[in-house]
Amino acid sequence: METLSENRSFEGVQGVYKHASTACGCDMTFAVYLPPQAKTGKVPVLWYLSGLTCTHENAMVKAGLQEHAAEHGLALVFPDTSPRGDDVADDDAYDLGQGAGFYVNATRNPWRPHFQMYDYITSELRDLVLANFAILDRHGITGHSMGGHGALTIAMRNPDMYDSLSAFAPIANPTQSDWGRKQLSAYLGDDESSWCQHDSVLLMDDKGWKGDLLIDQGGSDQFLDLLKPETLAEAMMRNRQPGVFRMQEGYDHSYFFVNSFAGDHVAWHADRLLQDQ
Amino acid sequence: METLSENRSFEGVQGVYKHASTACGCDMTFAVYLPPQAKTGKVPVLWYLSGLTCTHENAMVKAGLQEHAAEHGLALVFPDTSPRGDDVADDDAYDLGQGAGFYVNATRNPWRPHFQMYDYITSELRDLVLANFAILDRHGITGHSMGGHGALTIAMRNPDMYDSLSAFAPIANPTQSDWGRKQLSAYLGDDESSWCQHDSVLLMDDKGWKGDLLIDQGGSDQFLDLLKPETLAEAMMRNRQPGVFRMQEGYDHSYFFVNSFAGDHVAWHADRLLQDQ
Repeated sequence: METLSENRSFEGVQGVYKHASTACGCDMTFAVYLPPQAKTGKVPVLWYLSGLTCTHENAMVKAGLQEHAAEHGLALVFPDTSPRGDDVADDDAYDLGQGAGFYVNATRNPWRPHFQMYDYITSELRDLVLANFAILDRHGITGHSMGGHGALTIAMRNPDMYDSLSAFAPIANPTQSDWGRKQLSAYLGDDESSWCQHDSVLLMDDKGWKGDLLIDQGGSDQFLDLLKPETLAEAMMRNRQPGVFRMQEGYDHSYFFVNSFAGDHVAWHADRLLQDQ
Repeated sequence: METLSENRSFEGVQGVYKHASTACGCDMTFAVYLPPQAKTGKVPVLWYLSGLTCTHENAMVKAGLQEHAAEHGLALVFPDTSPRGDDVADDDAYDLGQGAGFYVNATRNPWRPHFQMYDYITSELRDLVLANFAILDRHGITGHSMGGHGALTIAMRNPDMYDSLSAFAPIANPTQSDWGRKQLSAYLGDDESSWCQHDSVLLMDDKGWKGDLLIDQGGSDQFLDLLKPETLAEAMMRNRQPGVFRMQEGYDHSYFFVNSFAGDHVAWHADRLLQDQ
């Protein structure tokens, strides 16, 4: 693991690191924020999964999560959204290939050799940060857009690995959206039964989430027809899933939206990760 | 108007009053809470509409709203849920007739002569409390169960008359529920087109609410199949209606549920009623 940069931030450290990923078969860059509390002991960690076209950097510099993480004493991890490099398959479209891993393990070529983001997030990078940082094995997960999809699906599939869950404007129902059908078809093939584990609405019907969860959605989001928040709200309430679904008037899909509610989400995770330790 | 009782409560006054109602053609009893701030000037008012079988009294003594109303400086009005008396039509069922007015103006006999609760709430009792108490013409509205249905439908139909809206476990979609079809049929007749103005899901599609709204629903409510919260959550989010829908784990349909979130709802209304006066 190589340190690319470290900056002081709210009395903690915002670092960027690179490592050779076995899961993805390429070098991967990620960011970790350690709050000041990590100087004297291990702290719980909140994973932030980013959306289409993003790297580890976008949320790290624009979401404003560090101030709140420092206040509550949580670490943050910002993974990349896909494998990258000249040897890695790609597509000219912004929403397929590099920058668009959708947090699945691809089973189809040309994607299969590198696009193993599900394993990368849930296993390889998890082990790496636990081994190398003052981070407790106590995890929350959130994300934005494609990363909201990732957070919801990964947490519901792995309730023993995560203890708090939220999402910003998630792609709620990718099996029924152009943000989803194209990518799941490419990465997993046309047998739609293989897609079910990657759709938060279907997982809400199948398993739900063990705790309560927080969803924020901007009411003026330019991608509402692709995100389909109504499908997740309906599935949550029909399944009596404890949680809060908020439609936030006037907010769009940008980081100005994420930033505006970053404090609420970090506090939500802190309330759940810091109790009963 | 006759004063039946007045009790000191959180440095304000909880009163119960009776008057001869023109709309309902019978004596009607209602309760008003005036917070201490009303001693020195008029205050905004939060209407609380109660559910099936309730009178003005249930929420007045069990919901715990007065403490929060006193803190924020809001008056409270607790109307009855139907006309009452030996001369008033009734039904042996708990969910039709006296105690079950559903906040509509009945057009069918035997209900038509007295069951005019929509007019009673939006006009007659409104005028009465504005004329007789230190209450500003600035109104919020909430309610529980049948009263949540009343609050949602009355507010959406009269956006100029209300400036804040919330509901506890509302009957969300009465045109599709046994809590609704029976009563709307009895009070309004079998032409279902006359029911549309009394269904919060249909009104959400037709008009929505001018502001944001707060809905709380208990996850262990014994009447979830009749309340159908998922239909309202879906309609809210599909229509990009600003607001918050919360599924509260483990709470049932009782006043223990209402009481637990009374503070949140009064604060919600205070935030909206006390600004920009």
